[in-house]
Amino acid sequence: MNFLEERILRDGVVKDGDVLRVDSFLNHQMDVALLDELGAYFYERFKEKGITKVLTVEASGIAIACATARVFGVPAVFAKKSKTLNVDGDVYVAEVESFTHKCKNTVIVCKQYLERGDRVLIVDDFLANGCALRGLISIVQCAGAEVSGIGIAIEKGFQMGGRTIRALGYDVCSAAIVEEMSEGGIVFRTE
Amino acid sequence: MNFLEERILRDGVVKDGDVLRVDSFLNHQMDVALLDELGAYFYERFKEKGITKVLTVEASGIAIACATARVFGVPAVFAKKSKTLNVDGDVYVAEVESFTHKCKNTVIVCKQYLERGDRVLIVDDFLANGCALRGLISIVQCAGAEVSGIGIAIEKGFQMGGRTIRALGYDVCSAAIVEEMSEGGIVFRTE
Repeated sequence: MNFLEERILRDGVVKDGDVLRVDSFLNHQMDVALLDELGAYFYERFKEKGITKVLTVEASGIAIACATARVFGVPAVFAKKSKTLNVDGDVYVAEVESFTHKCKNTVIVCKQYLERGDRVLIVDDFLANGCALRGLISIVQCAGAEVSGIGIAIEKGFQMGGRTIRALGYDVCSAAIVEEMSEGGIVFRTE
Repeated sequence: MNFLEERILRDGVVKDGDVLRVDSFLNHQMDVALLDELGAYFYERFKEKGITKVLTVEASGIAIACATARVFGVPAVFAKKSKTLNVDGDVYVAEVESFTHKCKNTVIVCKQYLERGDRVLIVDDFLANGCALRGLISIVQCAGAEVSGIGIAIEKGFQMGGRTIRALGYDVCSAAIVEEMSEGGIVFRTE
């Protein structure tokens, strides 16, 4: 069992509706040392890929993106939800549906922060149905950049996202894949 | 001139409506090395305060909070905007108005992540009218914890927030205080 699986067993809480709460260490309160381990984990997996940028979506991906970008020595970029007054019209746009929030969001990235030739590592805290990820992939493609890897903290292996994205040919690395979960316990996929 | 003021002069863009865009290095694309400098800057200023937690509000404060929490060796917590399915009822709540987005948000922190006795360093990317900050301060007070310091990347010295919060007795450290800005240039406060 790796560092993240151990932490999930210790501090994760399974709630109704296939919700796994890890907000004591990953996405509300954040254990920075754990994030650094996660960054190192993704680096080990993708260090040969010539990554030039780490991309995520706000809010809970930001901490993971920064920890990962630090190890790679490249900038982190986060896609913003909805249009704000501070963003120029010159943006890439994607629609994403949130599993957690049961709503649709428009996410945007300013064109100047993703360029043709960029080799992008997409990271996020969760992969469930894969909607957020497909939005980010579409933004990278619109930029003429390449998705060189996808690093996920926790994949819900019993939902379709991981299978779908891998079937499209993307190199997905999930630090922990939950195969089954209930209040009685959590089972991880072993590979 | 310090590291952040230099970077603002080099890469910041002044837009209509008192908007200073720093999203090429601070809050859309993020230069992790700069964030680390900012964390070290706040550490130097508040290292004697016995900080036990770094608190910010999503989304643009998260990267700064993590970089700062890393140096202090404490957890980072971010207040979430609006109620999500993933958060229990047991939360501290504050209303904040956003200068950038011209809207009101409810921000929440789960009670378990701020405790009586915590010595909290609040950090954020901008201090303008101080609404977000007052919301975070009120959350810390509801928790029976102490605001032991406030670290801001960029303070708009020509708006009331900084003066108001300091007048309330809080120890505010802004890495860069913009005294005046226009398309012609940016003037920083020198202390």
